Amino acid sequence: MHPLRPLSEDEFLKAKDILIKSYHVDSNLLFRSIYIEEPPKADLIKFLAAEHGEAGRNESVPSLPRLVKFVYDVIKGPGEHQLTEKIIDINSEEVVHHQSYPAWCQSSYTMPEFAAFQDACVSSDLFKEALKEFELSSNFAITIDPWPYGGLEAGEKMPRYMQGLVYARDASKDNLDSNHYSYPLPIIPVMDVVHKKLVRIDRLATGGRDDPLEPTPPSGTPKKLFTANKPAEYVPELLDRPLRTDFKPIDVTQPEGASFTVQDSSLVTWQNWRFRIGFTPREGAVLHDICYAGRPIIFRLSFSEMTVPYGDPRPPYHRKQAFDFGDGGCGRAANNLQLGCDCLGAVHYLDAWLTNTEGKPTLAKNVVCLHEQDNGIGWKHTNYRTERAVVTRLRELVVQFVVTLANYEYIFAYKLDTAGGITIETRATGIVSVVPIDEGKTSRYGNVVSPGVLAQNHQHIFAVRIDPAIDSYDAGSTHVVLEESHPVPMNPETNPYGNGYKIRRTPVTRPMFADAEPKLNRTVKLENANKKNETSGNNVGYKFIPNATQLMLADPESTMAKRAPFARHHLWVTGYRDGELWAAGDFTNQSQMEVGGVKAMVERGDWFGGAERTANDRKGADGEANGNGSGNGSGNSQGKLSIPVVWNVFGLTHNPRTEDWPVMPVEIHQLHIRPADFFTTNPALDVPGTKNDTSVLVSCCGKEKTTAENGGKASGEVQRDPVVHLQGTGSDIDPKNIGG
Amino acid sequence: MHPLRPLSEDEFLKAKDILIKSYHVDSNLLFRSIYIEEPPKADLIKFLAAEHGEAGRNESVPSLPRLVKFVYDVIKGPGEHQLTEKIIDINSEEVVHHQSYPAWCQSSYTMPEFAAFQDACVSSDLFKEALKEFELSSNFAITIDPWPYGGLEAGEKMPRYMQGLVYARDASKDNLDSNHYSYPLPIIPVMDVVHKKLVRIDRLATGGRDDPLEPTPPSGTPKKLFTANKPAEYVPELLDRPLRTDFKPIDVTQPEGASFTVQDSSLVTWQNWRFRIGFTPREGAVLHDICYAGRPIIFRLSFSEMTVPYGDPRPPYHRKQAFDFGDGGCGRAANNLQLGCDCLGAVHYLDAWLTNTEGKPTLAKNVVCLHEQDNGIGWKHTNYRTERAVVTRLRELVVQFVVTLANYEYIFAYKLDTAGGITIETRATGIVSVVPIDEGKTSRYGNVVSPGVLAQNHQHIFAVRIDPAIDSYDAGSTHVVLEESHPVPMNPETNPYGNGYKIRRTPVTRPMFADAEPKLNRTVKLENANKKNETSGNNVGYKFIPNATQLMLADPESTMAKRAPFARHHLWVTGYRDGELWAAGDFTNQSQMEVGGVKAMVERGDWFGGAERTANDRKGADGEANGNGSGNGSGNSQGKLSIPVVWNVFGLTHNPRTEDWPVMPVEIHQLHIRPADFFTTNPALDVPGTKNDTSVLVSCCGKEKTTAENGGKASGEVQRDPVVHLQGTGSDIDPKNIGG
Repeated sequence: MHPLRPLSEDEFLKAKDILIKSYHVDSNLLFRSIYIEEPPKADLIKFLAAEHGEAGRNESVPSLPRLVKFVYDVIKGPGEHQLTEKIIDINSEEVVHHQSYPAWCQSSYTMPEFAAFQDACVSSDLFKEALKEFELSSNFAITIDPWPYGGLEAGEKMPRYMQGLVYARDASKDNLDSNHYSYPLPIIPVMDVVHKKLVRIDRLATGGRDDPLEPTPPSGTPKKLFTANKPAEYVPELLDRPLRTDFKPIDVTQPEGASFTVQDSSLVTWQNWRFRIGFTPREGAVLHDICYAGRPIIFRLSFSEMTVPYGDPRPPYHRKQAFDFGDGGCGRAANNLQLGCDCLGAVHYLDAWLTNTEGKPTLAKNVVCLHEQDNGIGWKHTNYRTERAVVTRLRELVVQFVVTLANYEYIFAYKLDTAGGITIETRATGIVSVVPIDEGKTSRYGNVVSPGVLAQNHQHIFAVRIDPAIDSYDAGSTHVVLEESHPVPMNPETNPYGNGYKIRRTPVTRPMFADAEPKLNRTVKLENANKKNETSGNNVGYKFIPNATQLMLADPESTMAKRAPFARHHLWVTGYRDGELWAAGDFTNQSQMEVGGVKAMVERGDWFGGAERTANDRKGADGEANGNGSGNGSGNSQGKLSIPVVWNVFGLTHNPRTEDWPVMPVEIHQLHIRPADFFTTNPALDVPGTKNDTSVLVSCCGKEKTTAENGGKASGEVQRDPVVHLQGTGSDIDPKNIGG
Repeated sequence: MHPLRPLSEDEFLKAKDILIKSYHVDSNLLFRSIYIEEPPKADLIKFLAAEHGEAGRNESVPSLPRLVKFVYDVIKGPGEHQLTEKIIDINSEEVVHHQSYPAWCQSSYTMPEFAAFQDACVSSDLFKEALKEFELSSNFAITIDPWPYGGLEAGEKMPRYMQGLVYARDASKDNLDSNHYSYPLPIIPVMDVVHKKLVRIDRLATGGRDDPLEPTPPSGTPKKLFTANKPAEYVPELLDRPLRTDFKPIDVTQPEGASFTVQDSSLVTWQNWRFRIGFTPREGAVLHDICYAGRPIIFRLSFSEMTVPYGDPRPPYHRKQAFDFGDGGCGRAANNLQLGCDCLGAVHYLDAWLTNTEGKPTLAKNVVCLHEQDNGIGWKHTNYRTERAVVTRLRELVVQFVVTLANYEYIFAYKLDTAGGITIETRATGIVSVVPIDEGKTSRYGNVVSPGVLAQNHQHIFAVRIDPAIDSYDAGSTHVVLEESHPVPMNPETNPYGNGYKIRRTPVTRPMFADAEPKLNRTVKLENANKKNETSGNNVGYKFIPNATQLMLADPESTMAKRAPFARHHLWVTGYRDGELWAAGDFTNQSQMEVGGVKAMVERGDWFGGAERTANDRKGADGEANGNGSGNGSGNSQGKLSIPVVWNVFGLTHNPRTEDWPVMPVEIHQLHIRPADFFTTNPALDVPGTKNDTSVLVSCCGKEKTTAENGGKASGEVQRDPVVHLQGTGSDIDPKNIGG
């Protein structure tokens, strides 16, 4: 078994057996996560280098232990859960690591915990009492979205809680998928998760822009709900409008098969790319050992965390802040993708084994899809003298997974392309989170997307973790440099006409954070100072420009901000440590502040040796060096394995619009990691520019209906007449373009 | 003939006839541009409103004159050209406008002017003398790329010049498309265009980072050229490497036909969208009258200008600054697109009639392509309780043209999507501009992409012109508002927990410029203050976030900067005037400073009435208003037709990498214009989520070759074994995902 291959069912069962045996037979365990523990990096890179047959390495491939991590509760008594972690070596059959966690460490929620919430609420006297404050037609069925409790204020100590947003589904439609979000109730129940008992009901303010922050106390008379609310269905059978009938299919096919191969349920090769796909319950799909033509680029690439803070200051919305990776787990929340719907073309799916709370292996089917796609022109040049054009397409390999977190969906994709580029794409879709608002009012804290329904302003802030290995797995060989383009004042000596500008390079020599700086085109370069591009003489490298997106708006002193300092900067560079994967720390659920996240990593200050600044780099800081990178990277003077890890943070400030209702069209963000003197020429030069003979000409046709003919509707619908060939269509191409 | 329909051949000939008759029979005219003159906006919007049958408008469709604009030189004597413009009314057969331009107004170059340059050079004694300074093997054929002369310094007056970058093609390869850019010569000839005579040869500095700015004077001994230079071919028959053989085709087909219709060679309808495509010699494709479901959104949308300033301070590179729209004309430079190569799928092409210098109509064939494409998931939601997923695709209609400007290519595309969005995409590709550098040296001004070849640092800065008409063509109904999300300090009264943030709206009430401000998520909203969204109560509108890209680096006092003040800010809002389409002014060629561009429009200060700030807007400026827009927009108090025009400027700082050589992979920029409370729900809600049955499962297969088996090459090439079904593939989808 390759050390990076995800857990198989057999291993799962074998490891679990070993774990169980390490406990007394009467022990009561509640399983949370079971997955492969990646080997320590120092061992793994030796393995990979030998596996790749890296030049000069004659070591045989070392054998690495196959390790399985278990995260679970040891239930010591009623309501007494001890969060525990053990790592089992399947081959030696030993427990190689054992850790118990203090009470403040709240693990992510399990599906049964979420599922228990609805039942606990509807059967709770506290809840029933609260409902009496409202008059609700009998056709409505209470439907509760479970949420993490959110951040604790300083000094607060609470057991494991969950809160819920309460909605009502119109059961008279006799369809379990009727959209309950149209009917929000102004209460938030809070449950003690372990005891499965409601502890209180928070009341919600439902006023408008001039109303107070606090909720109106109940008046004594039941408040009639949903007097103005309207349905907002999205499932086709309940839709309030007909589906489009003129949406002709687009077929994407690969009659000769796909260009990629997948082996061992994890190893992918495609167009000089070679990498392994992992899958963890928290991260979803992870890419390992990304190489191009045998040269490493990235050791490990993943989505590390995301936080969604809400900007409505009325309590209890200050606790409306999910960390979807840490509180829930995106691997666990991954959709089973459907061929021809989620993914188009010639598609390969990957499954994953997850656990249920009893420790039974559960197959998460088709959670990752893999397929090629065309993305327009890749490169083109026409020699105007001869009119000879050479054009090739930009093709991408897409590794995608989709997660559902109650109301929201996120589509995460890694896209590798034929020009050596890696694009990390995030799409937000699904249903915006809504709360009630009094009929006829509007609010400064959100937008009324349906009568009586307020979609609150919020942000989505993501962190991507990049563990680079530029052209080598040797420790300390990858350096981070910030490169900027600076203006130079006009002056007779160096810039007589004022058109010149300079490149300034600042090596990153210690853990730090920084922000995007588009005014200087701030670019993050990941370079190997030991390997020069033989044409330019520069260090080989990859680069990305951190997108200048808005980051966390919450007051830095707020709990919301303290839980997520990662969300305040676009770039973090930290020293490597095994297992340190979480931008906001291991335990985000119900946290008071970020512990063990990137802020702490920077403050810890450990780094890597061999990054002493050379003469050239000092010149860089003075603003005079050009693209020639340097820095000797000759080893780790401290003897520790520390290598920079790079984290990119980007945000989407989402002040909802009515178009986001009832399901929002995707908002798309892309992070582009591109080669920078890694190759000596365009790596896509050898992509064939073969004409695709299945493309066809469409002649124009159709006569537009006048408004009268269209039954009074504005034009936009066209009646198709028989095909008519009009000017310029259907004839051969004349390559000569004599412009005028 | 619809007033926005591009010129037909018949009209061309008829109008030209009328023009010729307006001159003495012996007159000598050199034609530059002939195209449809769009009617004055005040007349056109009446026409469009009647054409659409806008509610309440009972006027019959007015008849508008069909006007043709001619731009040409009247040649009065040898070397005496008078740049002239006339507008002909085809129906009345009258000249309705006549203007002559002063000498400093240099029109764009024609193809014959470009073509004349090579011959003028190689036959020039001045040039032959200069070549004697070099020793050049006989296999090389001089190949010259013509360039605009660039900016004149203050006080300079020059006739119409052209300069050229000189290269040599290896003719021994017997292929006219052998890449001459590998072999740059260190001279730049300058030609008087009208007399077709070289006036001087500029020598180029070819040193490295410690060498002076001035060129080394000739030593007396001919300098041997290209001692280190290597070929860098891109045409497949000369490529130095085999083409990829494992690149399986991706077929994109629409077996039921395309969903769009094209009529009248210009009117397009697709998925509720309706618009006209125009084409001008300077802009290429222009979109007019963009409506969704009969509601106007944008009156006119176009790429207005771009400038490419080079950052190498050594003379004469301070004059290396092209304005590709104004100096050359992107319509004239548009490629003839090839089916299955430039555009994939079911494609419709549009042609355009351009003129040659004799005024003969010349068909520019297939210069614009139109096709649908899939762009991944459009929206999705899964109800986790039932596992019921509804997913639809995001589909786009692409209107694309590609221009070649000597070495560079730009791919311009307008993409309309099923969620009411408009994306304006720019891709840069082609060949970076290179100059010679001494063997073994490197430079602060660029990157050595091939031995002896320096690719200079430069920028590409674009301007898109948006003439909005949000839900109405009434003058003064569209307002521009800058909307930002601001932090609010934690305070007990309005933000007790510190999580709240506010939206600040600043109406734009006079012509102005502004920059992107991602820290505040600065968003430009185009709103109709007379039309409220019936659900939210906000003004209906569209919005975009100006991307925070680096803008012009040149010293503001430099000629380079003075020619393009447009390139210093991301956003310009100006008062409308007919024909005012050019961000850098009408005449960029050989300009000294920008005249009549957006800077001048702002300084002119004309605006529109009806934008008095109301109480709500004043609140907005104090930071307390939320999304409810206002402003009465009730008419134009000054009686003039002025409506805001919005210009978005974005840049790409391009410090070339070796991967950009010999042809660069596309660099992509996208401007996203999205509805903002224009619709009451997601306009793509009615897109059918039909499964595409042509998508297929790819089972994994193949066994990876070991390095030894691979002939010593690192793995990355895979030998395909017979198909093997491994875990999890090929079986039916299990909808239940019991996470753990």
